[in-house]
Amino acid sequence: MAQIMQPRSPKGMRDFLPDDLIKRQYVFDTVIDVFETFGFEPLQTPALELRQTLHGNLGEEAEKQIFYAQHPQGKEELALRYDLTVPLARVVAQYEGQLTFPFKRYHIAPVWRSERPQRGRYREFYQCDADIVGVEGMTADAEIISLVVTALRRLGFREFQVQINNRKLLTGIGEYVGVPGELRGGLYRSIDKLDKIGADGVRKEMAESGLTNDMIDRMMALLELREAGLDGLATLHETLVGSALAQEGIRELQELAQHLAAFGVPAEHYTFDPAMVRGLGYYTGPVFETIITEPNLGSVTGGGRYDGLIGMFRKQSMPTTGTSLGVERIIDLMTELDLYPPGIGKTVVQALVTVFGAETRAASQAFASQLRQAGIRTEVMLEDRKVGKQAAYADRKGIPVVAFLGEEEARAGTVSLKRLADGSEQTVPQAEAAALIRHWLEA
Amino acid sequence: MAQIMQPRSPKGMRDFLPDDLIKRQYVFDTVIDVFETFGFEPLQTPALELRQTLHGNLGEEAEKQIFYAQHPQGKEELALRYDLTVPLARVVAQYEGQLTFPFKRYHIAPVWRSERPQRGRYREFYQCDADIVGVEGMTADAEIISLVVTALRRLGFREFQVQINNRKLLTGIGEYVGVPGELRGGLYRSIDKLDKIGADGVRKEMAESGLTNDMIDRMMALLELREAGLDGLATLHETLVGSALAQEGIRELQELAQHLAAFGVPAEHYTFDPAMVRGLGYYTGPVFETIITEPNLGSVTGGGRYDGLIGMFRKQSMPTTGTSLGVERIIDLMTELDLYPPGIGKTVVQALVTVFGAETRAASQAFASQLRQAGIRTEVMLEDRKVGKQAAYADRKGIPVVAFLGEEEARAGTVSLKRLADGSEQTVPQAEAAALIRHWLEA
Repeated sequence: MAQIMQPRSPKGMRDFLPDDLIKRQYVFDTVIDVFETFGFEPLQTPALELRQTLHGNLGEEAEKQIFYAQHPQGKEELALRYDLTVPLARVVAQYEGQLTFPFKRYHIAPVWRSERPQRGRYREFYQCDADIVGVEGMTADAEIISLVVTALRRLGFREFQVQINNRKLLTGIGEYVGVPGELRGGLYRSIDKLDKIGADGVRKEMAESGLTNDMIDRMMALLELREAGLDGLATLHETLVGSALAQEGIRELQELAQHLAAFGVPAEHYTFDPAMVRGLGYYTGPVFETIITEPNLGSVTGGGRYDGLIGMFRKQSMPTTGTSLGVERIIDLMTELDLYPPGIGKTVVQALVTVFGAETRAASQAFASQLRQAGIRTEVMLEDRKVGKQAAYADRKGIPVVAFLGEEEARAGTVSLKRLADGSEQTVPQAEAAALIRHWLEA
Repeated sequence: MAQIMQPRSPKGMRDFLPDDLIKRQYVFDTVIDVFETFGFEPLQTPALELRQTLHGNLGEEAEKQIFYAQHPQGKEELALRYDLTVPLARVVAQYEGQLTFPFKRYHIAPVWRSERPQRGRYREFYQCDADIVGVEGMTADAEIISLVVTALRRLGFREFQVQINNRKLLTGIGEYVGVPGELRGGLYRSIDKLDKIGADGVRKEMAESGLTNDMIDRMMALLELREAGLDGLATLHETLVGSALAQEGIRELQELAQHLAAFGVPAEHYTFDPAMVRGLGYYTGPVFETIITEPNLGSVTGGGRYDGLIGMFRKQSMPTTGTSLGVERIIDLMTELDLYPPGIGKTVVQALVTVFGAETRAASQAFASQLRQAGIRTEVMLEDRKVGKQAAYADRKGIPVVAFLGEEEARAGTVSLKRLADGSEQTVPQAEAAALIRHWLEA
């Protein structure tokens, strides 16, 4: 045989062994269930896109992180997808005749970026997006926020808040404060740091970037409105009476609040925050971000309205709003906050059927088939091992129930079941075993 | 705005819009359920492997089809995975200390090959594998075949047969017939064509490749045993008494048959076929292939024992056997044979809540939230449209139930439900709507 190869996966990319993957799958399944309950349909696109599809849509920084791919004899220049939003825009333009609008889709899939590998940053990681294409009104944005709140609650999160702002309002504030157009990018970046560097830090940065004291005072007064939450919108409405754009942003946010109430989203789970900026890249209206507040664990979802993006692939763009759940971060926090239900263990197996010896192997295999037909996830010991070692194997794997089937039981058509959690044992007719196991699992 | 880009996906790669993806997902979910019922655990590996991991393990023809990937600043030479078997071998060697053996895993994921695009051939397609690592005995091979039969039956296939042979027996037959070692590859390739080119065609090919008439007669006599199925093994046992390897292969097949009977696999679903060769590349023991027999639609699963492969990454190899479900072909056949259950439609949505106007929008949104909380997959109309158009939208999307909530219903706390399949209507208190919808859906 040839030289032995060292088994190694690429840097920053992960193998998921069963114990980890079972937990990840629980999160994905829960989120999918919520997405579908809200009427979002699944969509899937290839891992590879044409290189030209990604170029020009992501921004310079992002483009540096793209992985390229090619087949040596292939003529197409390909790239691994960088996110799920550009593929959505491509799909909407490419298949618009086959789609029904409003088009509500979710997409959970890996993306690839050549991040420097570090804790919590990977070169292959999952994104988890839900978007609504074709609705201009704030009903769609409210539904997205309702979806986010429901998904996080279903996963077990309790202390979190969606912070809501509006890109139009931010631009209007820039106008009102009197910041020249070319300085506004820096202004927003400074505001975004409010929680990190404090009001004094933000003042200092603004001064350094050339804003006058008067501008800075006007700006900081508006940012104080964040304490007032949604009530701050009324004050803003009066203050920014001169900016048509700001007025439109405020009206949108007020409508959004009405729809959130109609959808029954609990008021403690959202607020208006004029200092919440998000990378403004392609957003055109409301923007939202969810923060785990207690303990303070930072952001787990982001999103907003981006009515221009589909216009990259289509003469007329289409109104679009959506969210991305930071599912990798959520998966880490599920462990940190101990949110996995007790049934989500290290193995999918619910029962191990032991094999006492060659004489009873056929009986054990037949019994395992019987449990499987009854829907119990069953492993039957495939190798010859001492019975004690088989029980130890179940224990090590975390299999909750072990079935013992010796010569006596085989003859009598019975089986001894043992629940490993508390050591309780019961001998029952084989035909009744599945019901007892199910009863134990549900207890 | 910049120039509009033409929306296009790479050649041979598919976007799955919701109506197709819902069907695919049904097949994946059904197969996963069967895999887990048999105690197989999920495994996931990165789409990208180090180039060196794939090279030298796949054979020359396969290596020509590999897609390469790289980040411009990256030092690692990467490749998109070509199958799920090499990643399994790598994972077993890389994490053996963390795994419990026998290691039974399934893996359903896309692989990439630069096939020439044609009907039914894609450059990104899904593989669906289940393998058992660490078991030498035929119990494992029998469990794999039991799994295949159960999965196909659960999907709705009825007329199919797993054809079983053994690599050792084939080598033994080559010895017995007297074919020199260097001609045996050609011999097996000719045998494999028996169904395509008939006995005369096979004879002709063998003669052309230099076999004597005597050799060909001996060979063809053995191939006739395929008619006898498993009973043919007894004849082979006598005929091939001189080949220790053939005897071992026969003994394995007889044991396999015993275990299949113990697992309760219906006898009509498997047979022994000495003319079933499969690409023999890495197989070392039993090989199996499933044929849809009625109508004759060819092969849908393949597999076998390959005890040497893990040795590519590890000083001592580990016994391994497994199967790959041809899930892309299965998905096509599900449509061809009309095997999807009626509930698997074009949409995940079960109920559309209409909106009569601005005055009742809040009531409709609140009612939609109520249905969602009750687990009904619900869409609420997000745009202002005439009610008739909303019903037409539901019809076009294939949503089975429409909820009408006008001013009168909103005041009375009721809702009118309509089942589109038969047009039946019922007005009920809103609190009872979820139960009625569920009843209709289950009917």
